[in-house]
Amino acid sequence: MSKAQFNQGRFFEDFTLGETIVHATPRTVTEGDASLYIGLTGSRHIMHCAKHFAHALGFADKTIDDLLAFHIAFGKSVPDISVNAVANLGYAEIKFSHPVYAGDTLTTETEVIGLKENSSGKNGIVYVRSTSFNQNHKAVLSWVRWVMVHKNDPNAATPETTIPHLDKVVSVEDLIIPPELDANDFDTTATGSPRLWEDFEHGERLNHPAGMTVDDSDHTLATKLYQNNAKLHFDALAMKDTTFGKRLMYGGHVISVCRALSYDGLENALFIAAINAGTHANPSFGGDTFYTWSEVLEKWEIPGRSDIGALRLRMVGLKNQTAGSLDTTHVDVDGKQQYHANVVLDLDYTVLMPRTAK
Amino acid sequence: MSKAQFNQGRFFEDFTLGETIVHATPRTVTEGDASLYIGLTGSRHIMHCAKHFAHALGFADKTIDDLLAFHIAFGKSVPDISVNAVANLGYAEIKFSHPVYAGDTLTTETEVIGLKENSSGKNGIVYVRSTSFNQNHKAVLSWVRWVMVHKNDPNAATPETTIPHLDKVVSVEDLIIPPELDANDFDTTATGSPRLWEDFEHGERLNHPAGMTVDDSDHTLATKLYQNNAKLHFDALAMKDTTFGKRLMYGGHVISVCRALSYDGLENALFIAAINAGTHANPSFGGDTFYTWSEVLEKWEIPGRSDIGALRLRMVGLKNQTAGSLDTTHVDVDGKQQYHANVVLDLDYTVLMPRTAK
Amino acid sequence: MSKAQFNQGRFFEDFTLGETIVHATPRTVTEGDASLYIGLTGSRHIMHCAKHFAHALGFADKTIDDLLAFHIAFGKSVPDISVNAVANLGYAEIKFSHPVYAGDTLTTETEVIGLKENSSGKNGIVYVRSTSFNQNHKAVLSWVRWVMVHKNDPNAATPETTIPHLDKVVSVEDLIIPPELDANDFDTTATGSPRLWEDFEHGERLNHPAGMTVDDSDHTLATKLYQNNAKLHFDALAMKDTTFGKRLMYGGHVISVCRALSYDGLENALFIAAINAGTHANPSFGGDTFYTWSEVLEKWEIPGRSDIGALRLRMVGLKNQTAGSLDTTHVDVDGKQQYHANVVLDLDYTVLMPRTAK
Repeated sequence: MSKAQFNQGRFFEDFTLGETIVHATPRTVTEGDASLYIGLTGSRHIMHCAKHFAHALGFADKTIDDLLAFHIAFGKSVPDISVNAVANLGYAEIKFSHPVYAGDTLTTETEVIGLKENSSGKNGIVYVRSTSFNQNHKAVLSWVRWVMVHKNDPNAATPETTIPHLDKVVSVEDLIIPPELDANDFDTTATGSPRLWEDFEHGERLNHPAGMTVDDSDHTLATKLYQNNAKLHFDALAMKDTTFGKRLMYGGHVISVCRALSYDGLENALFIAAINAGTHANPSFGGDTFYTWSEVLEKWEIPGRSDIGALRLRMVGLKNQTAGSLDTTHVDVDGKQQYHANVVLDLDYTVLMPRTAK
Repeated sequence: MSKAQFNQGRFFEDFTLGETIVHATPRTVTEGDASLYIGLTGSRHIMHCAKHFAHALGFADKTIDDLLAFHIAFGKSVPDISVNAVANLGYAEIKFSHPVYAGDTLTTETEVIGLKENSSGKNGIVYVRSTSFNQNHKAVLSWVRWVMVHKNDPNAATPETTIPHLDKVVSVEDLIIPPELDANDFDTTATGSPRLWEDFEHGERLNHPAGMTVDDSDHTLATKLYQNNAKLHFDALAMKDTTFGKRLMYGGHVISVCRALSYDGLENALFIAAINAGTHANPSFGGDTFYTWSEVLEKWEIPGRSDIGALRLRMVGLKNQTAGSLDTTHVDVDGKQQYHANVVLDLDYTVLMPRTAK
Repeated sequence: MSKAQFNQGRFFEDFTLGETIVHATPRTVTEGDASLYIGLTGSRHIMHCAKHFAHALGFADKTIDDLLAFHIAFGKSVPDISVNAVANLGYAEIKFSHPVYAGDTLTTETEVIGLKENSSGKNGIVYVRSTSFNQNHKAVLSWVRWVMVHKNDPNAATPETTIPHLDKVVSVEDLIIPPELDANDFDTTATGSPRLWEDFEHGERLNHPAGMTVDDSDHTLATKLYQNNAKLHFDALAMKDTTFGKRLMYGGHVISVCRALSYDGLENALFIAAINAGTHANPSFGGDTFYTWSEVLEKWEIPGRSDIGALRLRMVGLKNQTAGSLDTTHVDVDGKQQYHANVVLDLDYTVLMPRTAK
């Protein structure tokens, strides 16, 4: 047994600046994954549901839901990057760069882009940029995350501190617009809403009317579909003795549920182009009922395009409280602002939306 | 915000006799949907499960389950037609006219075929005929329903009363038989039962032996797969304060469960050709166990065909009580006949079944 | 009603030595089934997940999970063989002989290979060998089982006793290696573990770290996907008055869950070549959390192959107790060895694993 029986994941001292880690278990995404995702979220976003509609917009086929692709790609990085993490500290620069189609095989790689040992000497922060490629070595999506990771050997050498520059918001110039996309003949009949890019106002808030209760079978089925094997989502026995007391819902699936709930009001938000930042404000569990509101943070024209524009949106996810029943995300606790106990998600992301035809 | 943030659906005065409404979110139905449907119902109907068997009957491929196609097509009409409904009053003339294959994209349109304002002036009855088309503009199924809808403006003009003629039963002449179907070489080995059209007797009752418990995750997964977004199936929080107290199971999925349970005894009921009428006699909830019995209402020869015949069947769905333990669907309550509390479905439908080879 | 309304299954006297029974409801296995299986188990075995990886090993496409194919094939035999069974007595010689691809249609046939009436005259043991074929009449897997079946007519003639010879272990010479398999360029990056056939030791035990809680919706969804219609898995009302008191989890799905949990540590166990024997030591129910340990029983070189070897493994499934917390499977009860109450599975099977390149 010269080789370890089990993959133990990496500790802080195992990361080297600039190295690239190729993650295991590439995955062919299929129509089956797309259907189960619809079943798990009720998603109705048209680019992922209707082949002839995708054709009309210039695509070879309907595409795999952006978030489904993300969850599968992300899950691959978990065993290597975050299995010894003390905490997931943040996310940035999540960019969707190429459509994923049923039949594509995704492989995820991660580059170490920053390291900073903490003053305690017991752990450190690792900054990584992960990229998922299809079978043609085309990058389909990428993201940056930074996690605090334990040191295994307290005497391991301290690396030089390198903190990468990260954009707070993916700028409109950095959005990757699929070149095949042509929304000049966009037909709002297919989405059910005439509201296009021009119809949204800076600062506008949408209290999406729908709610969805998610049971334990739902979120565990989703997370297993994503092949994200983080123990805390599946193992009720192990979770019994934690502060949660039960299986924790994968935060990524909360994003998916909120995105699906936001369909009513954002029918024409065809694609997610980027996720700028995100906070899982409170944990979610089986049995919780989710609601969501959206706020228009910015409206951007896209250079060289008159058929589509971008909206930077804030998506707030709530549990067990309707979108209209809560004005703000934060409450004052002893003079300190903190998230309301029913706020579970605070996401800053950017969508592409067709513009009104001239 | 010149355009409404949310699609509010139509009120009574928004419907015009003869108009056609094209519903949103066309859907490509896939092998993934078919598999999840099998997982949710346990369905074994051979035309939807076995490609080479479908080939032997003349079809290009195994077909999408009739009811799965119906639920998806029907779900599309909900946001426009019934979101402001006081009540779903009835269904008629549900006809399956063309096979649906994995890869087909379904779009649903609805024609307003009748209007009748109620004497109160507060609401009215809208009669609609909805048709779902595939990507080749071929009608694959259609149905009539009538719903009572609120008026938004009590002073809106009263339309001329028009009540469409509707068939109580889709007659054998109006059944649409797929022209490719050739059951002359039908092999009962594949279905597991030698009982063909000739073997069924008028008035015969079959107490199907199987039972199936449906949990909340099961029926909500199904209804999300169908993209039917009616709140009362998903939102446990909103349902808590209703008379139901909890999420209501989509009545269409009850039909699917009963159809799957009826396999034992009706193995050779290959296709549903029509649904003549149907009543959801009582509500169903997660945790209910379903049973079903069938009754042969009529036996029809099909003009010009010696390979198949039609059976008009009654399918009675029960909850928490076996098929053999209840003789009739109704009970006497203070001299009035009403449905037994455990009867959840009373469906009148027509199937196609191969005949004994000459 | 000259023909019985319902298929009653076979009684002991209905089986004839040497006869072949073709089972009903052939099934086309699809990408949808593969995806739902991943959702239900979290399985990451690479041959079933990644198309380009399967190509690199010589296969036409990623293959359907061995156990998914087994469950579907096996389910077909239930209505004919074991519906009147008093007990399922044993399994042997489960051999996987040909890859199953999405789109293949499986049909199962069973040959009666042994009969032995019990001395009571009330029942007897039937030995059968079942084989599942694809649409090209190629055998894809086969198994032997023996069940005790009731006699319907106590006066039925007693057949000559025939007990087939069965291998306790499928020998390495009898393993069927897919001729297209070429693992000379096997890349362990794809599976995440460098441990290959040479790295495992006879007697080595692996306490797989992962655990998985399976709820009622999960196991019933799985068993319906497999179209195994044995009542005790689905009908909570009927089960209420049994000694179990609730729906019993299909033992085959327990195998699938344990196989998925064993991925960590057995990443390179690409294929199941054979199952030698198996015991469902205790029943499992919705809500149970599963763990598993593996033990290397034998290491075999494969004649004529230097790229792969075989490992005969023991896979022990536990409920509600971690793999590391139990040393042995048996406990002493009044001087008698019996399975510990938390042991649910004791499986003896053989996998193919790439060898270290020369």
